[in-house]
Amino acid sequence: MDDDLVYVYANTPQEEVANLIGKYDYMAIPVVNDQQQILGVVTVDDVMDVMEEEATEDLFKFAGTTDEELNYSSAFQACKARLPWLLITLATGFITSTILKYFMVEFKDVIALVFFVPVVMGMGGNTGIQSSTLVIRGMALNSFSGTDLFKRLMREIAAGAMMGLACGIIVGLWAEYLTRSTATAQISYSPPLLALTVGIAMMSAMTFAAMFGAFVPILFSRFKIDPAVASGPFVSSSNDIFALLIYYGVSMALLAVV
Amino acid sequence: MDDDLVYVYANTPQEEVANLIGKYDYMAIPVVNDQQQILGVVTVDDVMDVMEEEATEDLFKFAGTTDEELNYSSAFQACKARLPWLLITLATGFITSTILKYFMVEFKDVIALVFFVPVVMGMGGNTGIQSSTLVIRGMALNSFSGTDLFKRLMREIAAGAMMGLACGIIVGLWAEYLTRSTATAQISYSPPLLALTVGIAMMSAMTFAAMFGAFVPILFSRFKIDPAVASGPFVSSSNDIFALLIYYGVSMALLAVV
Repeated sequence: MDDDLVYVYANTPQEEVANLIGKYDYMAIPVVNDQQQILGVVTVDDVMDVMEEEATEDLFKFAGTTDEELNYSSAFQACKARLPWLLITLATGFITSTILKYFMVEFKDVIALVFFVPVVMGMGGNTGIQSSTLVIRGMALNSFSGTDLFKRLMREIAAGAMMGLACGIIVGLWAEYLTRSTATAQISYSPPLLALTVGIAMMSAMTFAAMFGAFVPILFSRFKIDPAVASGPFVSSSNDIFALLIYYGVSMALLAVV
Repeated sequence: MDDDLVYVYANTPQEEVANLIGKYDYMAIPVVNDQQQILGVVTVDDVMDVMEEEATEDLFKFAGTTDEELNYSSAFQACKARLPWLLITLATGFITSTILKYFMVEFKDVIALVFFVPVVMGMGGNTGIQSSTLVIRGMALNSFSGTDLFKRLMREIAAGAMMGLACGIIVGLWAEYLTRSTATAQISYSPPLLALTVGIAMMSAMTFAAMFGAFVPILFSRFKIDPAVASGPFVSSSNDIFALLIYYGVSMALLAVV
């Protein structure tokens, strides 16, 4: 008789049972109570259902809603599930519109700066999502160990900076072209300086976003907050605000002193 | 002997094998060649690995990169995997910056309109992602049947319109407040009219985004294109452009005629 038993308790979280079965390729695992009396068995096909459920749950969290939506039949129920995230985005919009107001009053002669606000924010946002997805999924699959996380963070920053450099150069060239073709009366700065501003802002925003996107899930998991929650609303909203502030800051540094 | 055999072929896609095993709660399934000679067996724990892999793959596609990243060790490899999606976002930025240029030349006296560009685009984008996630995941889990899809599309449009109405009213009130507090010299339109413009633009953009986000995955799956690909780059980029065009259009309709 093999008495080297592996078992789970009735209150063991289903993700943990799934991990055990998955890790050891078991076909089934006994469930016991506190007195180690057997209560039943969880088979591998139960676990498959759990895994499918978890994957769905993660994907919906990512999109800022809930997988219960799959069972909803009315549009009204769908609204209730989705509005919380949308309201976070809306609140973020209160902040970005206020920043933009100051930005535009400060640079009212440089309307061309505004043309690139959406792309700088968008690139920052996407870079952040990519970094946080990698870190969240890596942690969920136990691909990263503790000391690995710091290295991973450094690597994300390096990747963000490299991608930012490439994209910054491209957007700078585009900005140079687009502002040159704008009615000259509206430009009080030279197109090359404006192009440099846009390029540096994008590179800085992307580097920051990669760092932030990787750091937040690590921080959240330290505080036992489900890191999958972080990837959606929190990282996106913060990166929107930071990207705009970085753009504002770079513009101040390069254009306001001229 | 039970001769009611269920088996798969050596070239059956792994997702299909996983679906069969998952659906019937089998512990294993035989694999045969074209002459129905048995080649081996796929067990349920192999299938679990496949499912885990698929879930990871979907999540990474969603973020515009690839799950191979988990094995990458250098920042340079990460860049190569992520740049394609970022370049799509960048190309989208070329379009949005061009639209914004015309927008700002047209409404150079209404700088307050620009304050709300990021939030209108952001709300459109998120609404689209929520709709496409629901439809993609619903199709993957076979939760929706054929005729269901049309109903689902209608429901998404209704949900988008309702959420758009709620968010449009909120952003309108905010726009009214924010423009009132802006130096009056810069406003040539009354704050209420501007608030109405922003609110209607947001509601329209969100309704459109919900429709578009639900429609694209359905269309893609009809043409046998993996709908998970649609949720990331394509839907987001298109919704950014459409949201801005809608904002431009609503502004033209409400402000240009005054």
